Amino acid sequence: MATHGTRGGPAFPLPGGRARVGTRGRPFRRAGGHTSVSGGTAPISKLGEFALIERARTLLGNESDPRVLVGIGDDTAALQPTQGKILLVTCDTQVEGTHFRRDRMSAHDLGRRAAAVNLSDIASMGGAPTFALVSLSLPPDFPLSDFDDLFRGIGDQFRAFSAKVVGGNLASTAGGLVLDITLLGEVAPNQILTRSGARPGDRICVTGSLGASAAGLRAIERFGEAAETFFPELVRAHRLPSPRVLEGQEIARSGIATAMIDVSDGLAADLLHLCDASRVGAVVHMERVPVCRELLPAAERLGESPEILALSGGEDYELLFTARAGPETDETLRQIADACGVALTIIGETVPKEEGTWIVHPDGRRTPLTAQGWNHFR
Amino acid sequence: MATHGTRGGPAFPLPGGRARVGTRGRPFRRAGGHTSVSGGTAPISKLGEFALIERARTLLGNESDPRVLVGIGDDTAALQPTQGKILLVTCDTQVEGTHFRRDRMSAHDLGRRAAAVNLSDIASMGGAPTFALVSLSLPPDFPLSDFDDLFRGIGDQFRAFSAKVVGGNLASTAGGLVLDITLLGEVAPNQILTRSGARPGDRICVTGSLGASAAGLRAIERFGEAAETFFPELVRAHRLPSPRVLEGQEIARSGIATAMIDVSDGLAADLLHLCDASRVGAVVHMERVPVCRELLPAAERLGESPEILALSGGEDYELLFTARAGPETDETLRQIADACGVALTIIGETVPKEEGTWIVHPDGRRTPLTAQGWNHFR
Repeated sequence: MATHGTRGGPAFPLPGGRARVGTRGRPFRRAGGHTSVSGGTAPISKLGEFALIERARTLLGNESDPRVLVGIGDDTAALQPTQGKILLVTCDTQVEGTHFRRDRMSAHDLGRRAAAVNLSDIASMGGAPTFALVSLSLPPDFPLSDFDDLFRGIGDQFRAFSAKVVGGNLASTAGGLVLDITLLGEVAPNQILTRSGARPGDRICVTGSLGASAAGLRAIERFGEAAETFFPELVRAHRLPSPRVLEGQEIARSGIATAMIDVSDGLAADLLHLCDASRVGAVVHMERVPVCRELLPAAERLGESPEILALSGGEDYELLFTARAGPETDETLRQIADACGVALTIIGETVPKEEGTWIVHPDGRRTPLTAQGWNHFR
Repeated sequence: MATHGTRGGPAFPLPGGRARVGTRGRPFRRAGGHTSVSGGTAPISKLGEFALIERARTLLGNESDPRVLVGIGDDTAALQPTQGKILLVTCDTQVEGTHFRRDRMSAHDLGRRAAAVNLSDIASMGGAPTFALVSLSLPPDFPLSDFDDLFRGIGDQFRAFSAKVVGGNLASTAGGLVLDITLLGEVAPNQILTRSGARPGDRICVTGSLGASAAGLRAIERFGEAAETFFPELVRAHRLPSPRVLEGQEIARSGIATAMIDVSDGLAADLLHLCDASRVGAVVHMERVPVCRELLPAAERLGESPEILALSGGEDYELLFTARAGPETDETLRQIADACGVALTIIGETVPKEEGTWIVHPDGRRTPLTAQGWNHFR
C-alpha cells in the first residue's frame, strides 16, 4: 500500500511521497580516494530509506557524546545545552545548478563545502559549533557512492570543528540535489559579536585573503580540470573554503572586536551590511586588502580586475570585523594571528555614517564603496 | 559584477548563485482570502533578495521576544535557551512533486502544513515548540503573491503554537519548490518521551482518529475540487493536519506515558518503529482503532479498505503512545481528553518482543502487523 507524501518519523525522517524519477543527474566529478567500493554506481533507490539513514549514520562516524540525549533515529534530536551559553542557530542551502554543478565538484567536496559555509556563519558570531541537521533532497537515481561521499564530506568537515550531525531529513525529488544544513552553536553572553556593534573610529580587519574563491571559480570555468594545475590555491579556495571557526572564537574572546560578519557576498557587500547594521560609514584602503599570491597572475590570464575580485568576488568565508583603535588592538591582533596561523589585516576604519563608505585607491583617489554582489533573483 | 554560488550573510541568507530560470511552475491552487493584493502575479525575481527577506519578516509578524537576542537579519539567530530544559531540534522538507502539487494545494496551506509537520515532531517528544528556521528554494518565476501566502501560512501555524521564525535561507533553483523547516523546542528532563521507553503490558493509545488524511488525498486525486464538498473533514485532514502539541505536553506531564511517536508513516509502520526501539511486541485490536465518520463512506466510494487506510494511510500526525496499565491511567487519559478536547483511545497493548506484533480482527482472527508504509526510494 503506497502512501503519498508521507514523511518518515526518525530524526532522519524519510523521503516523502512517491519518487518520480527525474532526468538523470550528471555524475559528480570524482575526487581521489573517496569513491566507495561497496556503493559503486548503484542508485540510492536500491536501498530502502531506513538503510540509507543507517548508512548515513555510519558514514558520519559520530562518537558518543553525553550532550546528545537522543540522536539520529527518533522524531527529534534531544540535546543538553551548556548552561549559561547563548544558543546560535543558522542554516544554509546548496542547490544543484545554482550553487554547484555535479560535473565540477566531487560529492565529498560538496559535503565539506556545505558544512563549511554553515561553520562560517557560527564563526562570524564568535561561536563554537555544536550540532547539525542534514536535510537532503535527491533524485532516486542518485549514485549510492556519491551519497556515501557526500556524508563522508559532511562528517569530515564537522568533525574537524567538533560538531556532530544529530539528525536531518531525506527526501526524494524529481529536480536536482538540494542540501540544506542547519547548524547549532553556542557562545558566552559577553562574547557574542553581531553586525551592529561598530562605532566610528574602529579599525576594519579581515582574516586571511580575499578574492581567491571567485578567481578559482572563473579559472575552473575557463580552464576546466587544468585550473587545478595552474592555480591550485584558487581552486582549493573555491571548492573547500576554510571556515574561520577558531579565529572567530579568539577574536570574540579577546574583547577588542565590536562587530563581525563573514565574507560570503564579497568584502564590499558584507562591509556595507555591517555598516548598515552599525549605522557607521567606512573607508577601505585598497592597497591594504590582502589577496593570495596566485590572484594577480590569475586575474591577468582571466582578463579580470584583481581589485574587483578581491572586493566583490564573494564566497571567501573570511571574517570581517571591527575593533577598537589603539596599540592594545594591534598587539592583540598579532597574538591571535600567531596563535591561529592566519593573517589578520587592518584594511581601513569606520567613520561617522554621514561621511559615507569609500575606497581609497593607491593613487589617493576615493571612489564610493558599493555592493557589487550578485542579486540572485534579478 | 556577478558572483557565482554566493550565499548572502543575513539570517535569511540569500539565494545562491546565478538563477537559471526553470520551467514555469504550475500555479498554486488559490485559497480564499490569502492572495496578496500588492503582490499579484509578479514573480519574486522583480524584488531583490533583501526586499524578499524584509517581506518575509513582515509577513511572519513576529512580536518581540526577550529570548530572541538576534533574529532575522544577522548571520545566525541567537537565542536564550530556558535554563534546565532539554533542547529539541527537528527538520522536515516539503518537496514539490513529491509531497505536494502546486495545483492541488494553496501556498498558504503548504506553509501551514510544513509548519504543522515539524510541530508534530516536537509534540511527539512531549516538547514545547520555540523557534524555527525556514529554508526555501524556489524558481525565479515564483509568484510574489504565493511567496506572501506561503510565509503567512507558516507564520499563522507557528503563531498558533507560540513558535517564532528567527531565520532561514532563500535560494533560487531551476527545479521545483523545496521548503525545509527546522524547528527547535524544549522539554523538562523528567518529561521527555522517546520511542524506546515502552515495556510489555503497557497500553497502546492514540490521539484523534486515523486514516482521514490518506482518504482525503485519494478523494482529491479522484474527485478534484469536488472532494471538499463530499468529504470536507478528510480533505481538511490531508491539507491541514492538526499537530497535537498541547496533547503531547499534557501526556508527557501526566507521567503515565512510557514512549511516544507521531503517526506520519501510518499507524502500523510507526507502531513498529516504537516497538523496535522499545524491544517489545504489540497487539492492536482493529475494532478499537478510531476513524472519523467520513472514512467509511469515503472508503466505499473510493474502493479502498477502511482498515488499510486507518492502519497504513500515513500523514495523520496523531500521537501514538504507550502508558502504564492501571485504573490511574484510564482516569488520566479521560482528564487529558477533556482538557484538550480530543479523543484518546486505547487500541491495544504491548507484549514481550518474542510474542511478535499482531492485529486482532473483530472476528477474532489474528494477522501479523506489518509496515505498509511506502518506501520512498523503491
